Amino acid sequence: MGISTKKRLSPADNAPLNVEDCISGFGLPRRFYTSTGIYENDIKNYWNCSWIWVGHITQVSKPGDFFVFDYSQESVIISRDREGQVNAFMNVCRHRGSRVCTEKSGSTRVFSCPYHAWTYELDGQLRSAREMGPEFDRRDYRLRQLHLRIFQGLIFVCAGDAPPDIEAGLQDIAPLIAPFNIENTKIAHHASYLVSANWKLAIENYMECYHCGPAHAEYSLSHSLKDPKSITPELISEMHRAGEIAGLPIQDFALNGSDVDMHFFCQRYPLYPGYVTGSKTGAPLAPLLGELKSYDGGTTDIQIGILNNFLAYSDHMIGYRFIPISLQETNIEVIWFVQKDALEGKDYIIEDLTWLWHVTSQDDEQIISLNQKGINSHYFTPGPLSEMEWGIRAFYQNYLRMV
Amino acid sequence: MGISTKKRLSPADNAPLNVEDCISGFGLPRRFYTSTGIYENDIKNYWNCSWIWVGHITQVSKPGDFFVFDYSQESVIISRDREGQVNAFMNVCRHRGSRVCTEKSGSTRVFSCPYHAWTYELDGQLRSAREMGPEFDRRDYRLRQLHLRIFQGLIFVCAGDAPPDIEAGLQDIAPLIAPFNIENTKIAHHASYLVSANWKLAIENYMECYHCGPAHAEYSLSHSLKDPKSITPELISEMHRAGEIAGLPIQDFALNGSDVDMHFFCQRYPLYPGYVTGSKTGAPLAPLLGELKSYDGGTTDIQIGILNNFLAYSDHMIGYRFIPISLQETNIEVIWFVQKDALEGKDYIIEDLTWLWHVTSQDDEQIISLNQKGINSHYFTPGPLSEMEWGIRAFYQNYLRMV
Amino acid sequence: MGISTKKRLSPADNAPLNVEDCISGFGLPRRFYTSTGIYENDIKNYWNCSWIWVGHITQVSKPGDFFVFDYSQESVIISRDREGQVNAFMNVCRHRGSRVCTEKSGSTRVFSCPYHAWTYELDGQLRSAREMGPEFDRRDYRLRQLHLRIFQGLIFVCAGDAPPDIEAGLQDIAPLIAPFNIENTKIAHHASYLVSANWKLAIENYMECYHCGPAHAEYSLSHSLKDPKSITPELISEMHRAGEIAGLPIQDFALNGSDVDMHFFCQRYPLYPGYVTGSKTGAPLAPLLGELKSYDGGTTDIQIGILNNFLAYSDHMIGYRFIPISLQETNIEVIWFVQKDALEGKDYIIEDLTWLWHVTSQDDEQIISLNQKGINSHYFTPGPLSEMEWGIRAFYQNYLRMV
Repeated sequence: MGISTKKRLSPADNAPLNVEDCISGFGLPRRFYTSTGIYENDIKNYWNCSWIWVGHITQVSKPGDFFVFDYSQESVIISRDREGQVNAFMNVCRHRGSRVCTEKSGSTRVFSCPYHAWTYELDGQLRSAREMGPEFDRRDYRLRQLHLRIFQGLIFVCAGDAPPDIEAGLQDIAPLIAPFNIENTKIAHHASYLVSANWKLAIENYMECYHCGPAHAEYSLSHSLKDPKSITPELISEMHRAGEIAGLPIQDFALNGSDVDMHFFCQRYPLYPGYVTGSKTGAPLAPLLGELKSYDGGTTDIQIGILNNFLAYSDHMIGYRFIPISLQETNIEVIWFVQKDALEGKDYIIEDLTWLWHVTSQDDEQIISLNQKGINSHYFTPGPLSEMEWGIRAFYQNYLRMV
Repeated sequence: MGISTKKRLSPADNAPLNVEDCISGFGLPRRFYTSTGIYENDIKNYWNCSWIWVGHITQVSKPGDFFVFDYSQESVIISRDREGQVNAFMNVCRHRGSRVCTEKSGSTRVFSCPYHAWTYELDGQLRSAREMGPEFDRRDYRLRQLHLRIFQGLIFVCAGDAPPDIEAGLQDIAPLIAPFNIENTKIAHHASYLVSANWKLAIENYMECYHCGPAHAEYSLSHSLKDPKSITPELISEMHRAGEIAGLPIQDFALNGSDVDMHFFCQRYPLYPGYVTGSKTGAPLAPLLGELKSYDGGTTDIQIGILNNFLAYSDHMIGYRFIPISLQETNIEVIWFVQKDALEGKDYIIEDLTWLWHVTSQDDEQIISLNQKGINSHYFTPGPLSEMEWGIRAFYQNYLRMV
Repeated sequence: MGISTKKRLSPADNAPLNVEDCISGFGLPRRFYTSTGIYENDIKNYWNCSWIWVGHITQVSKPGDFFVFDYSQESVIISRDREGQVNAFMNVCRHRGSRVCTEKSGSTRVFSCPYHAWTYELDGQLRSAREMGPEFDRRDYRLRQLHLRIFQGLIFVCAGDAPPDIEAGLQDIAPLIAPFNIENTKIAHHASYLVSANWKLAIENYMECYHCGPAHAEYSLSHSLKDPKSITPELISEMHRAGEIAGLPIQDFALNGSDVDMHFFCQRYPLYPGYVTGSKTGAPLAPLLGELKSYDGGTTDIQIGILNNFLAYSDHMIGYRFIPISLQETNIEVIWFVQKDALEGKDYIIEDLTWLWHVTSQDDEQIISLNQKGINSHYFTPGPLSEMEWGIRAFYQNYLRMV
């Protein structure tokens, strides 16, 4: 048609991941949130190679108990075997690849694949397979095992061959969170919020409280983190004084940086006067956790690796996960923990207990989706991070090192 | 398995755009309608670099008035500032990229990002951003501005750095459409028709009336364009005679070709006897536009660049847009204009006013989707264009020059 | 950010198809079920180049009768012309590519494209096209014709230029299935089951009965194929004895292997005592097919190429197709045939006739989707095939040879 040039289209979806394009102190380039190739790589090199918090020991309290944890296209079975050992393995049959376990949780003697009945033990070993001929050795076909670590009742798994070193960090934060006695909690409630955004935008949202003031009216009434300047020495020392009495002499702790495999973080910060916990009225929501004797008016941010975040009030704890579903779909999962013997309806009311982080997560659902929409524009350019967004920088360091 | 060849798969989605594959006088190859890579390129190099008609000045009549115009993954804010200037800027926060404005239209003093409250003036300048440190200069972070041109009340924007030259063409058609006094119209109705097809198929559909006879029974009853042979010298001279009386001595005009940046087109053609406007009965639908004194029994096709099409009857005007949503989803947007002071229910009835182009657009919804379905076949081959499809050739020339 | 390596992402979706990655006796690698590039190639090089069973002559019994058969993005018209010839051609207009025929079946004199009214004869020849200028020759623009073969009333088409040799195989199985007189059957019912899986997983499911025991309780009550060891010499000779009386002295037949263009297969196997056909109670479901005089208590697996499978009981036949819709969507189509003169409600009850393969297909819908879910995991590795899965090996040989 009178035009004879070959024109090159945009870089392929699988063009090399040019980490040098990332500018220190700024957001990541658009492609990190819009490329299918980068998403696949995120799952393979970040998620599958990280420690992921999957649940609590009360979910596998007896031999035969199991539950399934899914992320992106991966599915993991966590089960307690007859010897009492907790195991994690991929929910992928070694025969033709079917999901082996189709229930979310339960109790069983074996896992029998619904397709051809290959049957696996509670520790993932292949127990039986029909008609496979004399050459076949069952021992070659156990379900792929994941690394597993139980820490104060919290179960972590890592699918990759060389999991990041977690022990040093766990030892450092162990005494700081011991007073909550997480091992002796139970899951009171579980909620999911589907966000139309890449998982990294959900993580970034949780990594900073710069947005709390503008976006979270309810949270901002009670949580001083929304405005670092409001965390006065007086507020801190009042919390520490009350902490001594309560039995919570907590210290802050951070292990992070560009040369660290796993980020650990633990910081207690004050609620505003009138609030003893994350409740609507400021009043208690449940029996005190662990050996705590009273309220200190604070709450503890706990990070065990970028992906696993917790918030421990004096009377309940919340776990946060940001589960990738697809390139621009993420499930924000929120899990509420209370003291193990607390009785629902008597010692705590679900609606009251979950109020704050339910409304806060609903806000986040909106703002994170709007973030993705804007980034999808060809005219998006990464902007400068504010001083309150240091947590995002820590995430980027860790992320860019691993992918 | 006894087979040892490496086989090459189809060309990558981002293989070069080989314009030479396009044969003059024939349709475009299949890939132009099925490739995600080409779709992305279309948005970047065609849509973002073209003038796009986004609205009418009545939508931003007072300082503070604004509306949002979206296409594909792009979102544009059009607002009138306190000095009375109309501005257009990208709806993408310069901080972390969130959509800044979440309402479709309204009136405001500033645009405050819902995520971290970065706040922008009505002209897109950054007014305030908290906690950004001493190095931060607000002037570096205004919302990305678009080129904007208001022509006879119609607002056009162009996102690209070097917009096509529009002035010469506008001057040429200005006197031809002046009698309709578009500036003194208002939007009477707005409808959207979602088509399961690439945006180019929707444009091609509008660019030719070869399909009008077979596909648009209602239109073909009254509009002579459906059969060029029916546009007799008698019909033309009768329209011109009536046009003189009405005050509409319109001339045809066309500015296009392979060496032109922007295509302009303006042609008045007769309705069949018995029809004074595009109505079901042939009778008037609304007060005469502009200074017109009577009906001339014609209608004017106006094209201000390929993407922006209008049809001006004596008593109302229709604007047509074909908004890409995704590779094979397009919104046909139809906007009806009437004289500014006309009163709904008294001077015009929405149902009657919109009848013709509502049924016609519903037909198009079907046939354009069927077009895409057929093109998706591996056995589609571009066929020869008929003599009545010269408008498609003009589109291809313009398109292939720009992408 | 202190990190300066360029990292390579996963292989592109259109990386070469490395057939050597496939291990004999094992499943195919993950990519064959997850790559869009391979899916597109499957349609082009496997489906478009194979013989596909599209229907039965009763669907085009009179001149002008037609029906449309779709697979993936392809659409084929099958019609009987005025000379009584049955033809197949692509449902893609040679002008701008629209679907020409929008009805699923019917009777017509011509096919007139709904877009611009290009009109085609019943044999696909272009009859008329308006305004195409003097150079235009209608003979250059007939609808693309497919190869077509009618065998015992079953219609097969092949879109590719060089269809696999089908004649030798058809001649070999012709006498074996002649007693069913398929030509004199009619379609009693048609059902579709949408499976969230790649089409190859649906084929693989049908190619083996290793899963029948674990997954199909109803089928396994009556069909000995679910357990080859249960097919005792006594059961076989009892079926053969009854077959002689019934007039069905059928022999097994298989034509397959890595050097064969088309796989043919024909095997009659016994139902368990008490079952004369594939019914819930074991009792007859419809009048005996063809010239059969009585029931022999068996059923015949018929394969005419990998894609076309049938199961002939003494009183009805079932046809199975696995129609690709998209990368991970497949329609399992099941078509029930009975003797041509049988009356619904009197000679057969739809609900009883279809019971077994309706419940069986519902099971398959579940297990095939679970298979895809597991294969989507990055940790899926192809496993060893059992001795009962020889049919899958035959499929792989044929598939890898063609793609």
